[in-house]
Amino acid sequence: MPNQVQSDCIQTDALVIGAGPTGLFAAFQLGLQEIKTHIVDSLHYAGGQCIELYPDKPIYDIPGTPRCTGRELTENLLKQLKPFDPQFHLGQEISSLEKQADGRFLAQTTAGQSFLTKTIFIAAGVGAFQARQIKLDGLERFNGSQIFYRSDANTVFANKHLLVVGGDTAAIQSALNFATDSTQKAASVTLLHRRDVLQAEPELLQQFQAACEAGKIRFMVGQVTAYSEVQGCMTAAHITDVDGQTAPLALDVMLVLLGLSPKLGPLASWGLAMSRKQVEVDTEKFSTSEPGIFAIGDINSYPGKKKLILSGFHEATLAVFGAAEIIFPEKKIMLQYTTTSPRLHALLGA
Amino acid sequence: MPNQVQSDCIQTDALVIGAGPTGLFAAFQLGLQEIKTHIVDSLHYAGGQCIELYPDKPIYDIPGTPRCTGRELTENLLKQLKPFDPQFHLGQEISSLEKQADGRFLAQTTAGQSFLTKTIFIAAGVGAFQARQIKLDGLERFNGSQIFYRSDANTVFANKHLLVVGGDTAAIQSALNFATDSTQKAASVTLLHRRDVLQAEPELLQQFQAACEAGKIRFMVGQVTAYSEVQGCMTAAHITDVDGQTAPLALDVMLVLLGLSPKLGPLASWGLAMSRKQVEVDTEKFSTSEPGIFAIGDINSYPGKKKLILSGFHEATLAVFGAAEIIFPEKKIMLQYTTTSPRLHALLGA
Repeated sequence: MPNQVQSDCIQTDALVIGAGPTGLFAAFQLGLQEIKTHIVDSLHYAGGQCIELYPDKPIYDIPGTPRCTGRELTENLLKQLKPFDPQFHLGQEISSLEKQADGRFLAQTTAGQSFLTKTIFIAAGVGAFQARQIKLDGLERFNGSQIFYRSDANTVFANKHLLVVGGDTAAIQSALNFATDSTQKAASVTLLHRRDVLQAEPELLQQFQAACEAGKIRFMVGQVTAYSEVQGCMTAAHITDVDGQTAPLALDVMLVLLGLSPKLGPLASWGLAMSRKQVEVDTEKFSTSEPGIFAIGDINSYPGKKKLILSGFHEATLAVFGAAEIIFPEKKIMLQYTTTSPRLHALLGA
Repeated sequence: MPNQVQSDCIQTDALVIGAGPTGLFAAFQLGLQEIKTHIVDSLHYAGGQCIELYPDKPIYDIPGTPRCTGRELTENLLKQLKPFDPQFHLGQEISSLEKQADGRFLAQTTAGQSFLTKTIFIAAGVGAFQARQIKLDGLERFNGSQIFYRSDANTVFANKHLLVVGGDTAAIQSALNFATDSTQKAASVTLLHRRDVLQAEPELLQQFQAACEAGKIRFMVGQVTAYSEVQGCMTAAHITDVDGQTAPLALDVMLVLLGLSPKLGPLASWGLAMSRKQVEVDTEKFSTSEPGIFAIGDINSYPGKKKLILSGFHEATLAVFGAAEIIFPEKKIMLQYTTTSPRLHALLGA
């Protein structure tokens, strides 16, 4: 329904796609310009690659911050952003984007939220982080009914035969929870990992070992290579071990925790000029080929581009100045300094 | 002597002009590329505008640092830079710059230091900070003999009649020192300020008041509008008070502490393409019109330029990548991450 606003559609001046460091700093700069911001991210938390890929690893090249972890950088950016209180829409991706007759953009998310916005900041990094799936023909039909990719309110496995797939902290912790927590105890729990080495803190590994020895969890080494189905229901996973032997394992539900991998997603189909999977931008406003849509951070490309967090910060800032001209066409946008501007001090609550 | 290297000439790969935040971060990025760096600044300390203009005022828009003062930012940048230990040459300015036949640049400072360097980073901000002088025809002839602009080892005023000009902490503290410190006590001390309001902490003002009441310091309100000279020697300053009355004050030496103001200096004559007193650069490498000379931070100009510290950081980083190609023509310059690169960890001492 182009040009018709649904009642639950959020009308806004700025929509930021991606809550990684670049998207968060864009929201901060938008705040300084008094532009209300909504932020969408596929993850269920802010931080993007910083949180997903290196939460506890140190970063040394954020100017003025000799050392911080990805998690600390995220926390600092959220703290800096706090005075502006942007609205986060997490655990969802932009599924469609359509330009309206009035120049605004109608964006819809996989969670059914829609936005009508004057400007868009694509700060999507390496793409939307999505759970790695087991690639078997037709298996995706069981997603949400028998196969799950995160443990949340929807994963009620009480009295069910559960196969957890994965070998990291999240997989081990989930196996332990469903094997031992009386409120959500499964009928049986099997943990399947492709190697016999699990990755977690020693304490958790000891707990896991104890649960295995007590017969509460079964640990298997191998991969799911096929499945059995009866009347639209998955009844077993066929597991191939390191020696190439395959045997079926009866199950009711599967919790697949193989980590996340980024996907560019539908962005590639929005008609923006791109080169080698990057969105082309100018270096004045970091505008894409579509006026009103800016691309900042690792997702963009221009001569000299380096995929550094610092560059995303700079790009976000200049893009916000570009957006302010669109959002406030009557107003002359002046550069003011946070050190000296009473207006900015008031906004920052300083 | 083009192409002849003087014995005290420092041969280097990179010379950074300006030890403000942009220059300091350029030195950090040069360190990551294993390029040895020398830094020149007209001030006697690092920090540039951050230290000179707002040492104690908060900055809110350094990404990941919700709030820091100019002094704190400088300290953090120096700490970040420490593993690379660049050599600072402070209290001096570049007085001449000449391209050599081999493509390197010969730079000389007002302190007599010369450098032969492959690349130059102009991070000169709003220009070299210089002491504000009293503007009277011919008065500058007494600079260094009877007129001084900072109190250091060269300002020995024992048994001399001293006029201190200025009304801030530095001026008041100097007047007190030379009036009361037995090791450097002047014959007489007069403090001259254009207004009857002095700017300093209450405690210092009380000390000053007490010294005036004890007859150790005379305080006058007015301005130096002329001077007397006998056989090449300044013998008196003519002081005009707020009522327009002028009277001579006999003196031996004058300490002028009117603060610092930036001057673009000889940079304007280096033949670089400029527009409105800014150095024009590209946005790929932030190169000036002279290959090998980069301009970063507030001194440069390009479409979309905002004079923000953050932008200086980004520009410094891309300029260093541009310089690395010149310094290491045989080497392919790869982007490595401080989070993951063992080489960078070793360099950082991480």
